[in-house]
Amino acid sequence: MSAIITICPYSVPASRASWYQPITIGLSKMPTLYQADLSPFAARIRIQLRAKGIDSFDFVLPPGGLGSDEYKAINPTGKIPFLDLDGTGIAESAVICEYIEEKCPQPSLLPDSPEARAQVRLLVQCVDMYITTPMFKTIPLLEQGESAKEALGLLLAELKAGLGYLNEYRNRSGLAGERYAIGDQLTLADGAIAGALFFVINFAEAMLGLEDAVPADLRELYETLKDDPHVAEALNEIHVAAEAKRAGG
Amino acid sequence: MSAIITICPYSVPASRASWYQPITIGLSKMPTLYQADLSPFAARIRIQLRAKGIDSFDFVLPPGGLGSDEYKAINPTGKIPFLDLDGTGIAESAVICEYIEEKCPQPSLLPDSPEARAQVRLLVQCVDMYITTPMFKTIPLLEQGESAKEALGLLLAELKAGLGYLNEYRNRSGLAGERYAIGDQLTLADGAIAGALFFVINFAEAMLGLEDAVPADLRELYETLKDDPHVAEALNEIHVAAEAKRAGG
Repeated sequence: MSAIITICPYSVPASRASWYQPITIGLSKMPTLYQADLSPFAARIRIQLRAKGIDSFDFVLPPGGLGSDEYKAINPTGKIPFLDLDGTGIAESAVICEYIEEKCPQPSLLPDSPEARAQVRLLVQCVDMYITTPMFKTIPLLEQGESAKEALGLLLAELKAGLGYLNEYRNRSGLAGERYAIGDQLTLADGAIAGALFFVINFAEAMLGLEDAVPADLRELYETLKDDPHVAEALNEIHVAAEAKRAGG
Repeated sequence: MSAIITICPYSVPASRASWYQPITIGLSKMPTLYQADLSPFAARIRIQLRAKGIDSFDFVLPPGGLGSDEYKAINPTGKIPFLDLDGTGIAESAVICEYIEEKCPQPSLLPDSPEARAQVRLLVQCVDMYITTPMFKTIPLLEQGESAKEALGLLLAELKAGLGYLNEYRNRSGLAGERYAIGDQLTLADGAIAGALFFVINFAEAMLGLEDAVPADLRELYETLKDDPHVAEALNEIHVAAEAKRAGG
């Protein structure tokens, strides 16, 4: 028995309705996506699935929690998201996104031309290498106080530089859209950028003293990205999960 | 005038000769690849171009050197490789590789099935996120001596964990080839792995006391990858460049 990836019509923008088609993934069970609402990496996948009208992935919390031995038996790094494909699996959000694009190409979250696709992938890679990597390394250091001050300073400089790279790459691409990162439709870059900037703007700026680290063009992009319903929904899920975490201690 | 990407017949394996075809890239000048022989990231691109028989990219050293203001005007991170496409450009080796695959698909360095392609991309991402990132961060710390000992220890633990992730992901894919990382032909994963392991095995092990950090399966893969002529040529270029750097100071 193969799982049929079904289409949820409520999420189809009118301009893209003709692109939707039922897609079969040849698996004996539904794909399981290990994820959590708080994760900006998982948010990318949720944005992508909804933009494509795919609503049949099983969303599952990592058993034992992030980084637990129980979950590392599933994904060696202990990170989310992880897409379990009936035995084998795919880790790393950027890789999962490319896989979903290949399996369910329409509506595409990559532009048509190889040059524009490369610019989308460059922005995604830039977020992964130069923004989220230093940003999330600050968390354990914050608890160490004074003794970690120097290490923290280096990470903040990295993060600030990373935000600059992202802005520069987008501006130099010659393809910056008015509402989206590249071009005039939602791409994989938008999910990556929105998730990362949510954490920079809502947490890193205040907690790490990073005011003015987000270049004006990027901040403006972040505000317009919120007008996309799939981005808005994912960011709201992060917000709700963050509030719940804060309330729980 | 468009640049014609020419085919160099000497590099065509007999089994793939029928795949070769002249490819036109619509640019008014030859693509310029900023690179250096010592870089494992640039080595991936050299391996890919030769495997495809493309010999018309201009290889150029970064003007002013890596990280210089002069070169950052070209690529904001100051890193190589960077592919200049007649005005705009593409940074990050993983992104450049995907672009070259899209422009010049044959012979492909990605497998046919989306599942196997995802495993190749996962290994590339794993090298970029968890191996080369901590490894090259150790260099400035080595010069700081005792004061950087704790930070160095953390990076080495990260690097060791990263080598474990790479090995695990490959073994769990169910697609590990006998001569190549995934399947039985050269893929983008092989270039990434070979370049990174060259530095781990030839420098990090001795300089950083990292003996036994490379899992046996990975070490065996590294040895068999050297039988691929394009991998061997790129690794030799790294070796020659490293010797020259050592001799020069």
